[in-house]
Amino acid sequence: MLKSGNSKSLLELLKDKEISVRSDCGGLGICGKCVVKILVGVFSDTTLCEYRVLGDQVIKEGFRLACQSYLISDEALIEIPESSLATSYKSADVGFEKPYKTSPLVRKCFIKISPPSLEDQKSDLGRLSSCQEVSRIPLRLLRLLPKILRECAWEVTVTLRNEELLDIECGNRESELYGLAVDVGTSRIVVHLLNLSNGETLAVASSPNPQQVFGFDIISRIAHAASSVESLEKLRQELTTSINELLLKASSDAGVRPENIYEIVVVGNTVMTHLLLGVDPSTLGRAPYTPVFTKGLEFKSEEVGIKVSPNSYVYVAPGIAGFVGGDAVADALAVGLDECIEPCVLLDIGTNTEVLVNNGKELYATSAPAGPAFEGFGTKHGLRAMRGAISKIFIYFSEASSDYEVLYEVIGGGKPLGMCGSAYIDALAHLYKHGIIDSRGRFRDVVSRRLKKIEEPKFVVVWGSESGTSEDLAIYSKDIESLLLAKAAVASATQLILRKANLIPEEVGKVFIAGSFGTSLNTENAAIIGLIPKVWVNKTSFVGNTAISGAKLILKSSEARRKAEEIAQKTKYIKIPADKEFTKIYVENLFFPP
Amino acid sequence: MLKSGNSKSLLELLKDKEISVRSDCGGLGICGKCVVKILVGVFSDTTLCEYRVLGDQVIKEGFRLACQSYLISDEALIEIPESSLATSYKSADVGFEKPYKTSPLVRKCFIKISPPSLEDQKSDLGRLSSCQEVSRIPLRLLRLLPKILRECAWEVTVTLRNEELLDIECGNRESELYGLAVDVGTSRIVVHLLNLSNGETLAVASSPNPQQVFGFDIISRIAHAASSVESLEKLRQELTTSINELLLKASSDAGVRPENIYEIVVVGNTVMTHLLLGVDPSTLGRAPYTPVFTKGLEFKSEEVGIKVSPNSYVYVAPGIAGFVGGDAVADALAVGLDECIEPCVLLDIGTNTEVLVNNGKELYATSAPAGPAFEGFGTKHGLRAMRGAISKIFIYFSEASSDYEVLYEVIGGGKPLGMCGSAYIDALAHLYKHGIIDSRGRFRDVVSRRLKKIEEPKFVVVWGSESGTSEDLAIYSKDIESLLLAKAAVASATQLILRKANLIPEEVGKVFIAGSFGTSLNTENAAIIGLIPKVWVNKTSFVGNTAISGAKLILKSSEARRKAEEIAQKTKYIKIPADKEFTKIYVENLFFPP
Repeated sequence: MLKSGNSKSLLELLKDKEISVRSDCGGLGICGKCVVKILVGVFSDTTLCEYRVLGDQVIKEGFRLACQSYLISDEALIEIPESSLATSYKSADVGFEKPYKTSPLVRKCFIKISPPSLEDQKSDLGRLSSCQEVSRIPLRLLRLLPKILRECAWEVTVTLRNEELLDIECGNRESELYGLAVDVGTSRIVVHLLNLSNGETLAVASSPNPQQVFGFDIISRIAHAASSVESLEKLRQELTTSINELLLKASSDAGVRPENIYEIVVVGNTVMTHLLLGVDPSTLGRAPYTPVFTKGLEFKSEEVGIKVSPNSYVYVAPGIAGFVGGDAVADALAVGLDECIEPCVLLDIGTNTEVLVNNGKELYATSAPAGPAFEGFGTKHGLRAMRGAISKIFIYFSEASSDYEVLYEVIGGGKPLGMCGSAYIDALAHLYKHGIIDSRGRFRDVVSRRLKKIEEPKFVVVWGSESGTSEDLAIYSKDIESLLLAKAAVASATQLILRKANLIPEEVGKVFIAGSFGTSLNTENAAIIGLIPKVWVNKTSFVGNTAISGAKLILKSSEARRKAEEIAQKTKYIKIPADKEFTKIYVENLFFPP
Repeated sequence: MLKSGNSKSLLELLKDKEISVRSDCGGLGICGKCVVKILVGVFSDTTLCEYRVLGDQVIKEGFRLACQSYLISDEALIEIPESSLATSYKSADVGFEKPYKTSPLVRKCFIKISPPSLEDQKSDLGRLSSCQEVSRIPLRLLRLLPKILRECAWEVTVTLRNEELLDIECGNRESELYGLAVDVGTSRIVVHLLNLSNGETLAVASSPNPQQVFGFDIISRIAHAASSVESLEKLRQELTTSINELLLKASSDAGVRPENIYEIVVVGNTVMTHLLLGVDPSTLGRAPYTPVFTKGLEFKSEEVGIKVSPNSYVYVAPGIAGFVGGDAVADALAVGLDECIEPCVLLDIGTNTEVLVNNGKELYATSAPAGPAFEGFGTKHGLRAMRGAISKIFIYFSEASSDYEVLYEVIGGGKPLGMCGSAYIDALAHLYKHGIIDSRGRFRDVVSRRLKKIEEPKFVVVWGSESGTSEDLAIYSKDIESLLLAKAAVASATQLILRKANLIPEEVGKVFIAGSFGTSLNTENAAIIGLIPKVWVNKTSFVGNTAISGAKLILKSSEARRKAEEIAQKTKYIKIPADKEFTKIYVENLFFPP
């Protein structure tokens, strides 16, 4: 997707310097998110794309799209606006977690061994069985065994996983038993470092998924992976490198040695887990859209390329089918979806939205390609739920100004830099309520200073004078289109799965909303735009990042791991059909409800 | 043990060229087995060792010890007498094998899979479960899976081991399921290539253990391994290189691709299995003589360095304790020692001799450091049971010549090159019967052309005119000493273990003799010299190389594998005590019985 040749685009050069610049379109010059200001240096000529996206004026001010600019001079100095940075944030790094007893697959055991004597000539390995029978041992550990036992004067701590010996250390190190839970999201990677001797979370770290440079959605990732063996390998390395960096950061924050991390549990959608393992996901990208694997699989961390204890394991949590991966299973596990007393629903809203239903008898799951609009990508002033993003919007008609006025809330305070998904939902609901847009989302002929219908029609939310970017922050016609498409995808998937589960919305007792929306989502507004049925407004719980919560449960509880496998096994996958009936539902959902 | 420095000894140079020259003493210049004739070339000066071992006359004829000679000129031409070659032989490569049903741990399954469709979007891996549930898969195979399935038009053969997928191939390859049994002996390595779909043996290959260059017995191997990390690694590599060569040879003989070998079972004494795995055996060499492991352990063949299917496993059969390793367990398994109706005994006579007893209730095992005399090493004209070796000897007093005459049998016919263990036992028995040696093995003052008491006392078995080496083949005083030491070790161990098992020799119903003696051993003569009790003469069965037979059973039958683990577990290890009582037994056994 990136231009080939000896020279790299500015976007790539920045990436090489580990500066993550946004690139929602994957460097195609369409999204305009990678805008930078050139201060010093000679670059390649401005492209047509840049004229279309940025316009004459902005270009004159020295702005360029990093993806379209190639450095010609030896050196350059540039300024990156905050809104172009794919900044990391913390708010969506935790989620609700159903309590499970701590009973990890790995355990430590401090043993004082009686040294061998002519009366007791048992083997070194046989002597360890006072803790537990050992039936497997990595060769490199076997080679070290006699030396360690003698150097440690026969007082050692052994680490076991089932009947396999993973580690042997001097003295009592029973408390140093750590594990890592990893949520590999399409856009972000979150890790939690756990003390597996008591189940406590010691550190959290997260970063943008570095693959975003190759396109925001999973389809463009599949396309990139399929382009060559090297591209697939590159995508794989990007994930392992990020996970290694995050685990180093978390370990350092918690004062833990990575060699004492013995188990890693990874959840992710099917494409992410394929890419992490270096498995070509291209069969997922074309009919009949099948993954290579869905089952929970374990590998030595070395095979996967994660730098922890060399004998540790990586367990990739089981997925359900299609794009519905281990993250959806983790969601269900974290909230106990399989144990609801009355019918319940879970919506994990993201670029790829998962909908899960328990109708009291069976579990159902589907996924909807919502696109990135709700996550703050693919809209002109969209931002993740990060510092500086507007999270809530309230539009009202002011008698004083005889015009519509806007109230908003900025995450972390200060001047707003853009709007996140929940703000867009608020805005849509208000614009619709006030009749500024019609049921198809088109701007009506309403008189307001904020409504500008020349060139690209838009409704200004924040005036340039108040914004952190000195630019008007507005909702464009095109944004409304993207949001409606996303809304239609989620709502249609929800309606479809309810129908398959023989449920009507009224029968659902509990609705869990997971994902990056967090508690900012106004459910009334979500119902007004038709994202969720009206009867769900007061039945909704925000559960946060339950993908990582579920990963943690699988990591710290063998029972939860069995349960996850059971959920993956028994959940019925509902595929989005390509038939007329579904098309009808989908088209209806492109309108706001009356 | 070998001289350091930039230049290598002739022995090492020959080894580099894969010419295995005998070196019983490990290159110390003592055994005189590496004698070669220099035809062209300048070498380092003759050493004192050579004068002592070869004598003036032989040195004048151009003979040298390869271990003492360093090449000075650029090139050289030498002649290697046949008796100096550590030739491979076949006779001890097979043994008795109790019948077991073929039920290997690995199996193949040809499946025709329905391709995925929009109606059936199951994952690629999930589709394989029509044969059997797959719960583990090596990462590299998972990466190849989608490609293979599609290229093979969904008709594939899967190879499984428990629930792990080891291989996937196009079309029906069910019959190409192979395994390798390996007996790593102190002196020789034997491999059998098996078709695991029917249990048939397809090829046999063997070669001398290349570690012989570092000394013949296991104690010198331990010493060498303990000398440095590099030495241990070198010993390990010698074994894996040999096994790889043998498996290539066997595969080529049988027309089998090594990639279709999915399981390898290795048996060997404790020192050999430690060295094969690169585990330092030095704790076995000093009190309290404990091994690092005895348990049956499995590793990926790649970890061990065996070049077969990359996903295959190497299973190192469980040993009992001390030096009593997986070869002894294999012996017991092959003859069904644990199922004897009346008390039974197994003697595996080798450099390290194992004695196992079933007293009808319990199994007992011990090992005796017999030394190499019975295997044709450590005696002046000793040879393995190879072509050209005398295997049987008969000494009688001829009225015609008024002297003792000798009848003998040569393996493969032709002129004799030396004598193997069974011939030495015959000779000892006859010399003792005729009163040529006394009960302590010393030559008496008997008048015979064959008895030469000047310098080194000896009894000539074959005159130089009849021998293949043009040299007299004789039994020396020193040989008799070595043989008596070996005999005493075996007999004492046997007496000790019988006592521990509460048995007298008369109660034993069956005696199995395993090892390189083969059927050449005359049990009456063995009883005359006191190697076995007189009452066992007619209860003896020769079972050959049961170590390799047992390895084959473990390879082809899961039931046999469980049985081997059971035998290893329940056999009581009897250690040779360092007390007065045992010393008394041992000293008594240094004499021939009256």
